[in-house]
Amino acid sequence: MLRKQKPVKDSFVTMTELVLPNDTNTLHNLMGGRMMHLMDIAAAVSAQRHSNRIVVTASVDNVSFREPIRLGNVVTLQAQVTRSFSSSMEVHIDVWAEDIPSGTKIKSNEAFYTFVAVDQSGRPIDVPEALAETPEDIQLYEGALRRRQLRLVLAGRLKPQDATELKSLFEIE
Amino acid sequence: MLRKQKPVKDSFVTMTELVLPNDTNTLHNLMGGRMMHLMDIAAAVSAQRHSNRIVVTASVDNVSFREPIRLGNVVTLQAQVTRSFSSSMEVHIDVWAEDIPSGTKIKSNEAFYTFVAVDQSGRPIDVPEALAETPEDIQLYEGALRRRQLRLVLAGRLKPQDATELKSLFEIE
Amino acid sequence: MLRKQKPVKDSFVTMTELVLPNDTNTLHNLMGGRMMHLMDIAAAVSAQRHSNRIVVTASVDNVSFREPIRLGNVVTLQAQVTRSFSSSMEVHIDVWAEDIPSGTKIKSNEAFYTFVAVDQSGRPIDVPEALAETPEDIQLYEGALRRRQLRLVLAGRLKPQDATELKSLFEIE
Amino acid sequence: MLRKQKPVKDSFVTMTELVLPNDTNTLHNLMGGRMMHLMDIAAAVSAQRHSNRIVVTASVDNVSFREPIRLGNVVTLQAQVTRSFSSSMEVHIDVWAEDIPSGTKIKSNEAFYTFVAVDQSGRPIDVPEALAETPEDIQLYEGALRRRQLRLVLAGRLKPQDATELKSLFEIE
Amino acid sequence: MLRKQKPVKDSFVTMTELVLPNDTNTLHNLMGGRMMHLMDIAAAVSAQRHSNRIVVTASVDNVSFREPIRLGNVVTLQAQVTRSFSSSMEVHIDVWAEDIPSGTKIKSNEAFYTFVAVDQSGRPIDVPEALAETPEDIQLYEGALRRRQLRLVLAGRLKPQDATELKSLFEIE
Amino acid sequence: MLRKQKPVKDSFVTMTELVLPNDTNTLHNLMGGRMMHLMDIAAAVSAQRHSNRIVVTASVDNVSFREPIRLGNVVTLQAQVTRSFSSSMEVHIDVWAEDIPSGTKIKSNEAFYTFVAVDQSGRPIDVPEALAETPEDIQLYEGALRRRQLRLVLAGRLKPQDATELKSLFEIE
Repeated sequence: MLRKQKPVKDSFVTMTELVLPNDTNTLHNLMGGRMMHLMDIAAAVSAQRHSNRIVVTASVDNVSFREPIRLGNVVTLQAQVTRSFSSSMEVHIDVWAEDIPSGTKIKSNEAFYTFVAVDQSGRPIDVPEALAETPEDIQLYEGALRRRQLRLVLAGRLKPQDATELKSLFEIE
Repeated sequence: MLRKQKPVKDSFVTMTELVLPNDTNTLHNLMGGRMMHLMDIAAAVSAQRHSNRIVVTASVDNVSFREPIRLGNVVTLQAQVTRSFSSSMEVHIDVWAEDIPSGTKIKSNEAFYTFVAVDQSGRPIDVPEALAETPEDIQLYEGALRRRQLRLVLAGRLKPQDATELKSLFEIE
Repeated sequence: MLRKQKPVKDSFVTMTELVLPNDTNTLHNLMGGRMMHLMDIAAAVSAQRHSNRIVVTASVDNVSFREPIRLGNVVTLQAQVTRSFSSSMEVHIDVWAEDIPSGTKIKSNEAFYTFVAVDQSGRPIDVPEALAETPEDIQLYEGALRRRQLRLVLAGRLKPQDATELKSLFEIE
Repeated sequence: MLRKQKPVKDSFVTMTELVLPNDTNTLHNLMGGRMMHLMDIAAAVSAQRHSNRIVVTASVDNVSFREPIRLGNVVTLQAQVTRSFSSSMEVHIDVWAEDIPSGTKIKSNEAFYTFVAVDQSGRPIDVPEALAETPEDIQLYEGALRRRQLRLVLAGRLKPQDATELKSLFEIE
Repeated sequence: MLRKQKPVKDSFVTMTELVLPNDTNTLHNLMGGRMMHLMDIAAAVSAQRHSNRIVVTASVDNVSFREPIRLGNVVTLQAQVTRSFSSSMEVHIDVWAEDIPSGTKIKSNEAFYTFVAVDQSGRPIDVPEALAETPEDIQLYEGALRRRQLRLVLAGRLKPQDATELKSLFEIE
Repeated sequence: MLRKQKPVKDSFVTMTELVLPNDTNTLHNLMGGRMMHLMDIAAAVSAQRHSNRIVVTASVDNVSFREPIRLGNVVTLQAQVTRSFSSSMEVHIDVWAEDIPSGTKIKSNEAFYTFVAVDQSGRPIDVPEALAETPEDIQLYEGALRRRQLRLVLAGRLKPQDATELKSLFEIE
């Protein structure tokens, strides 16, 4: 039986947050953990949109924090499903930080979160295939396999030498 | 000039948290983002202990979430610095979840966070070398270089073919 | 001197929130006060975008709550400046509530908040004129004068008989 | 059958709050949205006292914010039902802000919230008639009809020309 | 020089709170620690009212928790200064819990908190004498000395045999 | 029938917290009420460990606050059951505050909390006997009886002259 297909753009989510005092450390910068919490919420809503299901976080890929984000800044998160595998979905999140009075806006982070769709008893359940249409979305779709192999290798569930997609990265490029 | 050395065990931190309603999703399970927030706080305290400095999160490595953690469970986080590189420190975090009335305790997560020590103006500042002493700590110390190369490759700051430590993983093992 | 003009669409803000346990009452519905808090944040960001200034809430117009919004629902807020008057800006906010697993989405609220742009000492400061372009935005722009008179009458700062725009509503329509 | 009567003073509620860091914006002033959240809680308790029922917010009338309220200030809210209509109750709220060390106390806001009493399944249920006794309470009771017409007109559920109480305000006064 | 006198009733504070999900444990009862947090805020405002100063918590006397307070209950706290000693003030707090739909209201707790008034640098500063006028306030005023001796004995700052007020309790009564 | 015995060290809990902005007053010091909330959580987890049951706070003994704890400080709480009586357990909590950048660490507080183990309907249920082994733990075990009499006297449930353990403190020592 063919799985239902759904365009990835249907899962697009924009979230805007104001950095409040309790989100910050003693230097008045947004704490990394709070940022990862916001990304988790934005990405979960995106995965819910794709699957029309309750979703649970399965994994978070490497995230790096470049520039400090200040108290009072506006943080914008944009999340969209890149690809699905049976019951799991990879979500790509872009984060921007704006200091509106000074007119600066920087790309602050980028991350990939993976969610599993579950039924009311918490059991995994299949989701629609993700249909990428724009060049940018197709590139994210295609990279998803390699990122998935990396996740499996890092979780000790795939031997590095069997990660064919991933190996090519180190041997050829 | 030689950098000061400091045993990694001096940075050991234990944090215990009770899962409260606002930490949970509609299935009454701890949300992944909230967990990453707790890991960030525990790891930051550990990096502070190693460096005696204010620290900021630089990156978070892949984290996978295996078992759901329920409302009312007790979460225990143990964080310890594994290795330092100039102003940055890698911190390893182990997370356990206990359901005390039923007497179950599971290893829930494991993660590596990286922090940078900064001065009061937010500029990076050198930290002591990390001295690993037990076999387990030495293994974490030695793996730190490979994880660091992976971080740099994933952040686009190192070409895969130059990641010698990392390549060996795919070619030889 | 002419005031700078700025298209209202530049102030458009989308905010997505997940209804968490602490946002709800004993019927597990989002509390009205929490909703007004979210609308205030979304609208403030929109007013900041128009003015490139710190803004403070000056007033909130009548808001009515139609349908209950449930725990786990996704709330989407869309805010945009409608018109500005010297240092104040009226912001229009639309709120939708989605129950994603059941596929329902309802328009939950609509509101007008007014903000004043201030400098670092909290003194009012002029903002750009708001330029409405689409038919819908022009309609909101034109209604802003009547809503402003109503606000002044309700705050006891304008006599009802002097509220010419507002009177016409009752005499003619 | 006659509805039960209940004096409005039985629904009187006083609530005292300390302005904490997370309640404030970057100017260290209480955010308007947080204030509306506090007013909602105080007013809901008052409506619960009148009806002995679970209540849900039905609408909030215009609120204007005059003076900034600072971090560390003490906010006092006083709420009391003014009048009831079948299952709905209008609640009047007065808000004062005190800076205790400097000995200043200002009337900060005044608002009208409307609540509907519901049963355990969320269905509206009749509440006692509100009995106003003091001159001030009688004045609030009498104005309630006009404010109710304004709410209905603003919600598009009453034509302006049918709002007889409200029209008189513009034609005669 | 005589210290200024101030009636204790000028420090009377009423605080009303709704028990929200995050305040509760897995049995849906208000947690003891959250209750002590609320009592601290109410009592601090009362001590601020008496002293017109910033105040810091110096000690909390024994508190016992009798009846569970449920999610959705209304908690009312009433705090009033009983007596002052140089820069410190003892505050008495009464707590009631109401389940409004079922019409039950119980006295839930009673506590004594002690605060010290401080200046902007955190140094203790003298406060007015507390003037008790009603029989109930006079009784609280007179018991304050005995409670203070108990606090000093328990903190190891007074030898039991020197606690004359307290000893009489055990020898005579 | 003999009650089961359990070593007190099995109930040992360490909790580490970072002082965040919302935990602090206008002097940027941790508020006493927030501290008591943290102590309640740490002690509850310890009592859960001893009893393998849901626990509810029964009482809190005198707590005194010596030194201010600053924003950004690390607070470490260590909790351990001292003794049990039928369904209740006394827990001892030690609190340290560290300012890591300046290298200072002070003993901030010490407290005794009492919990009752309950079943799912909230009814008290017997817990294991607490087995103290080290000299320090035996001293805490032995003092528990005297502290319990004091609690009963203070709660008006024991006449001072019948508090034999407690009386000896004032007559002899």
